[in-house]
Amino acid sequence: MSKYSVIGKRVHRVDGPEKVTGSAKYTFDIVLHNMLYGKILRSPYPHARIVNIDTSQAERLIGVKAVVTGKDTLGRKQSTWRRFPELCDEEILCRTKVRYIGDPVAAVAAIDEDTAEEALDLIEVEYELLPAVFDPMEAIKEEAPQIHEGVELNINVTRHIEWGDVDEAFKQCDYIREDHFKCSSQAHVCMETHCAVASFGYDSKLTIWTSTQSSYYIQALVADMLGLREGDVRVIKPHTGGGFGSKFELDSAQFCASLLSMKLCQPVKIVLSREEEFTATKRRTPMYYSVKLGAKKDGTMLAKEVRVITEGGAYTGMGATALYLTGFFSSFPYKYPNYRYDGYRAYTNTAPASAMRGFGAPQSTFVGESQIDMLAEDLGIDPIEIRRKNGMTPDYEVPGQAHIQSCGLHQCLDKIDEHIKERGELPPNRGIGVSAYGFMSGGIFNWFDTPYAFSAAIVRINIDGKVDLFTGACDIGQGSDTTLSMICAEELGVHLDDIRIHAADTGICPADLGAWGSRETLMNGNAVKMAAADAKRQLLEFAAAKLGANIVYDMDIKDQWVHMVDRPERGLSYFDIVKDTIRGRDGETIIGRGHYTPHRKGMISPAYSFGVQAAEVEVDTETGKYKLINVTTAHESGTVINPVGIEGQLEGAVMMAGGYGFCEDQPMDEGKILNPSIADYKLIRSLDMPETKILEVDTYEPEGPFGAKEAGEGLTNPTAGAIGNAVYKAVGVRINDLPITPEKVLKALKEKKQQAE
Amino acid sequence: MSKYSVIGKRVHRVDGPEKVTGSAKYTFDIVLHNMLYGKILRSPYPHARIVNIDTSQAERLIGVKAVVTGKDTLGRKQSTWRRFPELCDEEILCRTKVRYIGDPVAAVAAIDEDTAEEALDLIEVEYELLPAVFDPMEAIKEEAPQIHEGVELNINVTRHIEWGDVDEAFKQCDYIREDHFKCSSQAHVCMETHCAVASFGYDSKLTIWTSTQSSYYIQALVADMLGLREGDVRVIKPHTGGGFGSKFELDSAQFCASLLSMKLCQPVKIVLSREEEFTATKRRTPMYYSVKLGAKKDGTMLAKEVRVITEGGAYTGMGATALYLTGFFSSFPYKYPNYRYDGYRAYTNTAPASAMRGFGAPQSTFVGESQIDMLAEDLGIDPIEIRRKNGMTPDYEVPGQAHIQSCGLHQCLDKIDEHIKERGELPPNRGIGVSAYGFMSGGIFNWFDTPYAFSAAIVRINIDGKVDLFTGACDIGQGSDTTLSMICAEELGVHLDDIRIHAADTGICPADLGAWGSRETLMNGNAVKMAAADAKRQLLEFAAAKLGANIVYDMDIKDQWVHMVDRPERGLSYFDIVKDTIRGRDGETIIGRGHYTPHRKGMISPAYSFGVQAAEVEVDTETGKYKLINVTTAHESGTVINPVGIEGQLEGAVMMAGGYGFCEDQPMDEGKILNPSIADYKLIRSLDMPETKILEVDTYEPEGPFGAKEAGEGLTNPTAGAIGNAVYKAVGVRINDLPITPEKVLKALKEKKQQAE
Repeated sequence: MSKYSVIGKRVHRVDGPEKVTGSAKYTFDIVLHNMLYGKILRSPYPHARIVNIDTSQAERLIGVKAVVTGKDTLGRKQSTWRRFPELCDEEILCRTKVRYIGDPVAAVAAIDEDTAEEALDLIEVEYELLPAVFDPMEAIKEEAPQIHEGVELNINVTRHIEWGDVDEAFKQCDYIREDHFKCSSQAHVCMETHCAVASFGYDSKLTIWTSTQSSYYIQALVADMLGLREGDVRVIKPHTGGGFGSKFELDSAQFCASLLSMKLCQPVKIVLSREEEFTATKRRTPMYYSVKLGAKKDGTMLAKEVRVITEGGAYTGMGATALYLTGFFSSFPYKYPNYRYDGYRAYTNTAPASAMRGFGAPQSTFVGESQIDMLAEDLGIDPIEIRRKNGMTPDYEVPGQAHIQSCGLHQCLDKIDEHIKERGELPPNRGIGVSAYGFMSGGIFNWFDTPYAFSAAIVRINIDGKVDLFTGACDIGQGSDTTLSMICAEELGVHLDDIRIHAADTGICPADLGAWGSRETLMNGNAVKMAAADAKRQLLEFAAAKLGANIVYDMDIKDQWVHMVDRPERGLSYFDIVKDTIRGRDGETIIGRGHYTPHRKGMISPAYSFGVQAAEVEVDTETGKYKLINVTTAHESGTVINPVGIEGQLEGAVMMAGGYGFCEDQPMDEGKILNPSIADYKLIRSLDMPETKILEVDTYEPEGPFGAKEAGEGLTNPTAGAIGNAVYKAVGVRINDLPITPEKVLKALKEKKQQAE
Repeated sequence: MSKYSVIGKRVHRVDGPEKVTGSAKYTFDIVLHNMLYGKILRSPYPHARIVNIDTSQAERLIGVKAVVTGKDTLGRKQSTWRRFPELCDEEILCRTKVRYIGDPVAAVAAIDEDTAEEALDLIEVEYELLPAVFDPMEAIKEEAPQIHEGVELNINVTRHIEWGDVDEAFKQCDYIREDHFKCSSQAHVCMETHCAVASFGYDSKLTIWTSTQSSYYIQALVADMLGLREGDVRVIKPHTGGGFGSKFELDSAQFCASLLSMKLCQPVKIVLSREEEFTATKRRTPMYYSVKLGAKKDGTMLAKEVRVITEGGAYTGMGATALYLTGFFSSFPYKYPNYRYDGYRAYTNTAPASAMRGFGAPQSTFVGESQIDMLAEDLGIDPIEIRRKNGMTPDYEVPGQAHIQSCGLHQCLDKIDEHIKERGELPPNRGIGVSAYGFMSGGIFNWFDTPYAFSAAIVRINIDGKVDLFTGACDIGQGSDTTLSMICAEELGVHLDDIRIHAADTGICPADLGAWGSRETLMNGNAVKMAAADAKRQLLEFAAAKLGANIVYDMDIKDQWVHMVDRPERGLSYFDIVKDTIRGRDGETIIGRGHYTPHRKGMISPAYSFGVQAAEVEVDTETGKYKLINVTTAHESGTVINPVGIEGQLEGAVMMAGGYGFCEDQPMDEGKILNPSIADYKLIRSLDMPETKILEVDTYEPEGPFGAKEAGEGLTNPTAGAIGNAVYKAVGVRINDLPITPEKVLKALKEKKQQAE
């Protein structure tokens, strides 16, 4: 018998049939009896005091059932950083002040969307305009307008990380360079916009169906904001059309639908328009980097000093975490003996900048991987070689921060080295750039101050052997329902279709932090594996009794066969043992429980994935336009649970991170986003996609379920840097300012030509 | 502090707010995307062979999506008597033969009900008519047509119960009388007709929302009939508008909707019309009784011999149980030292006769309580007195059948005696009749052959102290959600609104036999109490540790206060201890489990309720019409959990059992029910309702949760007998043939007058 029966196999997604037949229900598809439709009125000004809101005309419009403003709220402020009250700064429905174009000021519930929309026009808001500031560099100046009361210099959060003796180390360097980079904003552009159906009943209980990455966060935050007990709020995540970091904070659709429903005791649905999605939800944090890097002649990097200022936008959101992670990942994936990071997040009168796939790491990886290539060139060292010399290795301790157990970076470097050699001599204006990276498998930090285990699972085995798996994990399209079902089936020794997963419904599933930070495979996977093992143990007790086995024999289940490990032919059918066990326990179903919270794994994450990516581009030197020809990635994520899932993650990541490096941007004019539509916001579409390839690397993570670790966000980190390095390899110009657009390339080519002349 | 904080209190139903505001969702209210509507074609003949079914025209009708017949099924036969395959005799969609007017032969799914209805007319069924038999006395004759192949004399089930030496005992009797009785049919007349929404998805999983008394039975039966695994079928019971015994068998709406949905991969809703409800669902079993009763001069009853033939209708259904229970309850509530019962269930070409509230006991109680009054009169003994002399007492063993622990019959007799005395001398043509009775608190028999515990519950405590209670119990209007929530709150020491119940959804709740046989308060109550105790124990461990209590002290929780039993002022807040416990367990929620299956409690039930009812009537001797003036009941159900619930049960029972005694009937002509509408089927309506009163009796049942036992069906048993006895007391005529209509009374009065002349 092979080692694994389910994991590592190419299986169909458990939600595949529903999705391909169009029968999968998303929040948008939910229609409740008597349901109303809500719309949200948003500030047209980047910074203004609310003098008065007159809703009387809107309320008189036929078909309008309710209008709410900040006065209808408890006036509480929130964020997911509950542990730090000063970072809970967002009211959602503003009471006294708006801080960006898009800040919600009122919401309407009406019999249809058109009526609600019409009512918005009838709400009269009297504003007193205030001076606004959009650039973080300006925002931190003495003379800048103050965006939040009591926050001096608009500095929202500061972060400091340091180890070794950085100043001393720089003195010992043979070579030091200092560079500046700018990382742009990016929109998540989920297929499904933010949306919620909220139903508050006469039983004083609130149920919310919503597109979310964390049912539990929304449950807890809504309860607090509306003055309800958590247990009286049930959040159900139907099928979800993407999250990418945009959907684990409480959003205006969820909050306003809930508030309106509570006022009316009627269900209310709010679906954000695509324009609202672009202008009034959160986005990737723009960052300004100054980096000083020192090395010995042989390429050994001795010291790094990073200073970052981020454009925070109007509220904290998850931006505080992005500020921390970009600092931590600026040291990745290398062994800097001396390191210092200072990060500052500035409030600005722009849409809040927060979490997005990679969570600060795509920025730091672009910066770090651009600079290491510069260093390598300066010192005349091969880019792969300099990464080999400094790259992390297994069992490496990031001083005071993290313990890295498994690490396959060097195997990845070997694979990519081989790949580049195979490509051989390239035609003119073509280049291959490489970028190494690492990422976490879920975060250890508990800024949400959850009292619950980070992940938990319940496995129930019924009389027919069918297994109900309950988990709070949120499948937002990334495939966690499939991955967790596979882990459950493998551990329990049954088939994938023996598992029926119930996920992300706070009414029936254990609390779970949700889908962010690439945590589900490792954290939920561990909880699921433990729950399945707990259930299996109960079966094996009865099986051992029935087989009359000598107690020294180990027993296990595989392919629905309960057997002795060393004599697999001696066994019994799983189905029979399930029946016997339930009978033996007076008819009680078998329930296994598992929960996982990382301990003694440092401050960041219990495990890290690593990888190296090579991007090949071809530049048209006449126009600056370039094509992505091929993106090849060696990603090591420990044991691969779901190979098809990883391929999907890779393709999606290349599309998204390629867009980040290549074309995506959110230009603003006085705080107003200029391209709030899919027509104007440039994405990489299927026809622009390069050939993608994944190179297998075999590692094993002791902390992960069956040795697995993340394969989600990490893949988003390398591409911008690899593109930048590839453009440089192709035509010798380097762009430090994302995205690397044809305009910038052409301008740099011209400047280079002028310099040469 | 008083003994109980929650139980015994007059609380609002937990489903009250939803119901009184009209926001409660019933199966009828469920509308799914792409949902179709189904209709069922039924046999117009009582007995016929199906020669051919041509569905081609119906299939061509625009708007029709599918037509199914018996050929689309696996040809399996079912009933809830799974342990006895020969009693599984109902195909639902008949393949070769129809056996009653209403037997389903085809079903249609279409875009709306009208189209489906129209399509039914286009289905051409060629029948070969067969001779039919309607009267059970005829059906068991040699020359009668055979309704089921291989079933000789159409005898479907026989039952024999015997103890003592009956023949010898009769020899020792001073007085013997033999009487014949006929008990009529009765319709359940639920406010909500049978209905189901079935949705079979591309994931090959079937979800059914249905009005049922047992989600689990329907899950198991549908799975078997459609060849699915139980775990792939999820049955959800929304709010339910009554069951009364009619809704724990698989019905045509559930089966046809599921079959159609499986064929189409689209949701299908079927709601039976009121006419179908009367003609093509099951009904109370008509019974023919011959009873021989022997006593000593002093009224001590020595021997009873009962022979019953029941009109079974076309299929077994739950009729086999009714046959057994009417035999067992024919000995109730008296201590017969010698007893013999022979029961025969005959197949007839009428709608299947099966379970209805009381389940055979209203019949046997009418018969027994009529006859004991005759005996008392013959011997010149007061009716209360003869019941006192023979009535059951605590710790009584029904030989070989049952062990009765608590029994408050004698207190009930005292209360009713007092009540009658209080009424004093009555005007002419008025009379008070009494009737004593007993009933079970759930059945021990496992003809369904469930491998699961009879009841199970899971209690989950969340960080905010809110408690999720998961149970398979089915609240069909009787209030089990409230009763079980009260039990959970009491045991856990929290408030009723701390509990949130999740019930009767096989996807998330433990398996449970459902709501029948008055089992939920005792059986589910025990499981819930155990689950709550299990959760509480976990809290008390942490509380004891925190309080540093000497380990000999007992601790408990009451009113959200965790304290030492003997020093209640020393304690801690429940909410704090919940937080501590979850924290102490690394964030795992607290889960308690409980399950209950009766053991060593005989063959029938773990506990029995008792009661005595007095009905006062006034007869108009000119017309035979009579009025129910007052019905007063002393019912002992052990500790009263939910007093408002018992009052509701009593009122409903007087209405339903009064109707059984007074006016309800289903006359037939050649197997055709003549009054299939609420206009023609006579019910007692609110204006006809007598004054009702409940007299409290204090008992304690050791096997029940907090000492509780049943207060549901038992209340349906006495009324027909009490009415019969009251009419006799009022005007001296006795009707042995239910219902006791004015016509029968007038006829008897005339006969009496003629005899006297």
